[in-house]
Amino acid sequence: MKNSKVYRSELTPLTFLRRSAYVYPEKIAVVHKGVRYTYREFEERVNRLTSVLLNYGLKKHDRVAFLSPNTPALLEAHFAVPAVGGILAAINTRLSSGEIEYILNHSGSRLLFVDEELHPLLKTLDLKHLEVIQIKDSGSLADPYEKLLSEGSPEPVEQLLENEEEPISINYTSGTTGRPKGVVYTHRGAYLNSLGSIIETGMNVESVFLWTLPMFHCNGWCFTWAVTAVAGTHVCLRKVDPELIWKLIKNENVTHFNGAPTVYAMVVNSPQANRLENPVTVNVAAAPPSPTLFKNLKKLNFRPIHLYGLTETYGPITVCAWHKEWDDLPIEEQALAQSRQGQGYITADLVRVVDKNDNDVPRDGTTIGEVVMRGNNVMKGYYRQRRATSEAFREGWFHSGDLGVWHSDGYIELRDRKKDIIISGGENISTIEVEQTIVKHPDVLECAVIAIPDEKWGERPKAFVTLKEGRVVSEKELISFCRENLAHFKCPAAVEFCELPKTSTGKVQKYILREKEWGDIEKRIN
Amino acid sequence: MKNSKVYRSELTPLTFLRRSAYVYPEKIAVVHKGVRYTYREFEERVNRLTSVLLNYGLKKHDRVAFLSPNTPALLEAHFAVPAVGGILAAINTRLSSGEIEYILNHSGSRLLFVDEELHPLLKTLDLKHLEVIQIKDSGSLADPYEKLLSEGSPEPVEQLLENEEEPISINYTSGTTGRPKGVVYTHRGAYLNSLGSIIETGMNVESVFLWTLPMFHCNGWCFTWAVTAVAGTHVCLRKVDPELIWKLIKNENVTHFNGAPTVYAMVVNSPQANRLENPVTVNVAAAPPSPTLFKNLKKLNFRPIHLYGLTETYGPITVCAWHKEWDDLPIEEQALAQSRQGQGYITADLVRVVDKNDNDVPRDGTTIGEVVMRGNNVMKGYYRQRRATSEAFREGWFHSGDLGVWHSDGYIELRDRKKDIIISGGENISTIEVEQTIVKHPDVLECAVIAIPDEKWGERPKAFVTLKEGRVVSEKELISFCRENLAHFKCPAAVEFCELPKTSTGKVQKYILREKEWGDIEKRIN
Repeated sequence: MKNSKVYRSELTPLTFLRRSAYVYPEKIAVVHKGVRYTYREFEERVNRLTSVLLNYGLKKHDRVAFLSPNTPALLEAHFAVPAVGGILAAINTRLSSGEIEYILNHSGSRLLFVDEELHPLLKTLDLKHLEVIQIKDSGSLADPYEKLLSEGSPEPVEQLLENEEEPISINYTSGTTGRPKGVVYTHRGAYLNSLGSIIETGMNVESVFLWTLPMFHCNGWCFTWAVTAVAGTHVCLRKVDPELIWKLIKNENVTHFNGAPTVYAMVVNSPQANRLENPVTVNVAAAPPSPTLFKNLKKLNFRPIHLYGLTETYGPITVCAWHKEWDDLPIEEQALAQSRQGQGYITADLVRVVDKNDNDVPRDGTTIGEVVMRGNNVMKGYYRQRRATSEAFREGWFHSGDLGVWHSDGYIELRDRKKDIIISGGENISTIEVEQTIVKHPDVLECAVIAIPDEKWGERPKAFVTLKEGRVVSEKELISFCRENLAHFKCPAAVEFCELPKTSTGKVQKYILREKEWGDIEKRIN
Repeated sequence: MKNSKVYRSELTPLTFLRRSAYVYPEKIAVVHKGVRYTYREFEERVNRLTSVLLNYGLKKHDRVAFLSPNTPALLEAHFAVPAVGGILAAINTRLSSGEIEYILNHSGSRLLFVDEELHPLLKTLDLKHLEVIQIKDSGSLADPYEKLLSEGSPEPVEQLLENEEEPISINYTSGTTGRPKGVVYTHRGAYLNSLGSIIETGMNVESVFLWTLPMFHCNGWCFTWAVTAVAGTHVCLRKVDPELIWKLIKNENVTHFNGAPTVYAMVVNSPQANRLENPVTVNVAAAPPSPTLFKNLKKLNFRPIHLYGLTETYGPITVCAWHKEWDDLPIEEQALAQSRQGQGYITADLVRVVDKNDNDVPRDGTTIGEVVMRGNNVMKGYYRQRRATSEAFREGWFHSGDLGVWHSDGYIELRDRKKDIIISGGENISTIEVEQTIVKHPDVLECAVIAIPDEKWGERPKAFVTLKEGRVVSEKELISFCRENLAHFKCPAAVEFCELPKTSTGKVQKYILREKEWGDIEKRIN
C-alpha cells in the first residue's frame, strides 16, 4: 500500500481497523451473543480470514460473496476481502434462490460464505463453480468458519492496494430493469463516506453501534468501516427484534443505530419501550420519519437524524442538518422541517434538483425535478453494465430517479419516484420485476404494480391484473405464485382484477392507479 | 473544479465554506471585536476578496503573503487565495524585518496584505516588486482592505483546481539551516487534516472556536478550514490576552481552543480564572501539558487533548488518544499518560520511531530514535528547496528531527531534538540562526546556543560566547545586538562567557552545555 509519494497514502477503510487495533487493542470491538472480541482479536480474526482467502488462491479484484445476517463473520469480511485486493459482494438475505443465483453468476464470485440459517436457499442452485463455506455463527471450533480461521495465520499481510479508486465492494440493488444491478464502491469513496457519517452523526471512541441495519445494505451505509474508524463497539444483531434491541440498548449502552422508519416504529411501539437515560442517536433513512414517529422518538430520548441516499451513493449522501432555531418550533413543525432530505454531507458535493434538460429547477419548494448527485460519495458505476452506467451518469451527474423539490433554503425534499421502485421497510422492490413474475402465471394477461402506502412498511406493492379471457384465479393463488418465485417482501400485499387504464398508444397509466390508491396524500412516496 | 469522473471530486477545503454558507447562511461564522459575520456574509466577503485578487491579475499558483494577527481578513484569505488558484503565505508576525524580507523574496509573493500595527516592520524594506495592501482591521470603509472588498464582486468564481495535490499554502518555519524553509501544503492534505482534527477534537455545528493560536502557524493547524467545515463559529483574537480570553469564553460560549502550554498557563493563572459551567476542549501542542497544568485545566473544567506535530505535518499529526481506564488513575498518573505524544490521527499513517538505519527501534519505552511520518498529513515538500526536501524525505519517510521513544502500547514520547531547534512559547527558534547573528558582533570569536528550560515559555535560548582576545562586551550589550537583528523571541535569555567544550576534531559539544543547564531533568526538551 506504500505510495512512492511521501505525502500521500491511498485512502482506504482498511487503515481504520489497523489504527484502532493499534491504539485501542484491549477495547471491545465486537459484541455478539455471548462473544466479545477486543480490537486486537478483531484484527487477528480479520488477518486469519485474509490468509484463508489467500490460501484459496484469491487474486486481486476477485469477488467474494457473503450471504449472512449481521454476524462477526460478515463484519470481518469487510476488512479481510479488500485486504487481499478482493471485492466483497454481500447479498441481501431476503432474496429468493433465483435472485441469489443471478447475483452469484453476474458477480462471478469465486467464494461464497453462507450462514447456516440461509443455506436452504442454495439447495436448488448449481454451485459447482464456487467454493462454499458455511458459517454456523457459533463462535466455536465446530463451526466450519471458525475452523478455517483457526487454520489461518494471525499475521497481517502486505496490502495490495495501488490506487484508492480500486473497487472495494459490489452491492446489488433492484433497479427498474428488473434484474438487480451491481453497484461498485471504491476504497476512496468508502473512506470518505465513513468520515462523513462519523462527523454528521457525531461518533467517537465512546460510541456503541447496534446493528439493526443489515450490513448487506450499502455495506451497512459504510458504518462497518465508520464505527471501526472511531474504535467504537459493534453490537451485532441477526434480526430486528424489538425486545432484544431494548435489552441491548440498556445492557450495552448503545449510543447509535441506523434504520428505516419501519424499524423505529417497531422499537418505539414495543412493550419494552421506556425513556432512555442517555440520548441515543438514531439515523433514519429510506423514508422520512413521520411526525408521529419523530415525536415518539424524541419522547423516549432518541435523537433522530434524517439521512437520505441510495445504494449508488454509498447509503447516505444527504443529511437534514438541524438548525438550532427549530428547537423553538412546535414539535409537529420540527417533524415537518426534518422530514426533508436536506443537503449533501460535508464530504459530498451539493445535491441538485434538475429538470428534463438537466438544468436546476427553481428553488421554490414546488417545482418537481430529478435529484442528481456527483462526487466522492457516488458509486464508480454498475458492475459490467457500461450502458446502464453511462445512462445513469449522463451530463456528468448521477441521476437518482428520485423526484423532488428544491426549497428556498437549499434543502431538497423528495416527492415521487421516476423509476418504478417501491421502498418497503427500507428494501427496494422493482415493480417491473414483480410484474414480470406475475405475468408468468398462465392465467394472467397483463398486470401493473404500484406502491400503496402502508403504516408499518412505508410502502407495499399492489398488483392490478387482467386475466386471460375466461380464466379464473384468486388473489390468494396469485400471491402464493409470487412467493414461490420472488423474495417474500417483494410479493404484492393485494391484487385487484380489472382493466388497466392505458394511453392511446397502449402505455399503462400508472398514475391513474396511484391516484386511486393514494387519494389526497400530497406525496406519492411514503 | 469539475472532474470528468462523476464519482470523484478533488478534495479541497474550499468546499467547506461553500457548503456551510449554503446550509447555514444565517449562522454566525466570525466574531471579531464589535463585528459578527454570518456564513452568508463570510462567503460573500471571501468572494469579494477573490474577485479583488483576480483584478490584480493573480494567476494560478501565484503567492500571496499576509502579515496579520488573527483577523477576519486573514481568515478570509484562507479561502479567497486558493479560490483563484493562488498559494497563501501567512507570515509569522513576530519575525524581524529582515526575516520578513527573506520570506517575501523567497516565496516570490506578488501581493502583501499587512495589518496596520505591523506596517512599521516594512519601513526599511524594498517592496517595489510587491503590491502592498493595508488592513486597518476596523471593519469600516475607511479601511483600505474593506474598501477593496466593497469594490469586489460578491459572486463566486469558477474554481480553478484541477488536481487535489496542488499547493494551497506555504508556511515558513525555522529549520536547522538558519534560514526559514517554506513548507508546502496541498488541498488534499489540508482537507484530510481538517477532517482528522474535527473527529479527534470532537467539533460540530455547535462548536465555537477561539483563535488563541496564530493563523500563521500551519494555517492555524488547519482549523481555519476545519471550524468552517462544521459551520462552527470563529472568534478572532488579535493577541493572547487572558482577561479577554476569559471574557470571550463566557460571552461567546467558547467550546474549543488551541495553543502551546504557555498560553494555557497564562489562562489558568489569570485572576479571571473560574470553573467553567460547560467543559471547554483545549488542544495542547508544541510541548506536553505538565502535570500541574493538566491538573489546573481539569480543575477548571477544561478538557485537555494533547496533540503533536510540526509545520511539516500540517500542525497536529498525532493525538494522545485518551483511554477510559485512565479516568481511574490518580491525576498525576493521568497527566503522565497524557504527556506522551500518542499516535497518528485517524486520517494519518501510524508514526514510527527509527534508528540511524531507519529501522524501528524496540517498543521498550527507553531506546531513543527519530520520529518519522508519511502519508496524507505530511507536507508536499520545501518550496524551492529540492535538496532539503529529499534529505528530509529519505527512505520514503519524513524525518522530523524529534527524538523519542516508542512505548509498548504503541504510543510515542518525545525526549530530545536532533535538530538544533528551540521551541519557546510554541515558536521555533533555530539555534544556528541565533549563533550566526551573535558571531556577527565584532568582539565575538565564537558561540554556541542551546535551549534552557523556562517555566513560562517552556524553553528559551542561552548563548555561550567566547570573545576575541582582549575584547570586552557585556551580556546586556550582546542581547541588545541580537534584538536589533532578530525577532525578539529568538534572542538569548542569558549569555555566558566561557571557552566552548569541543571534540578533538573541534566540534562543539553542545551536550556538555546542556548537561550543565538541564542537570538531572530526564528529558532534554521542555
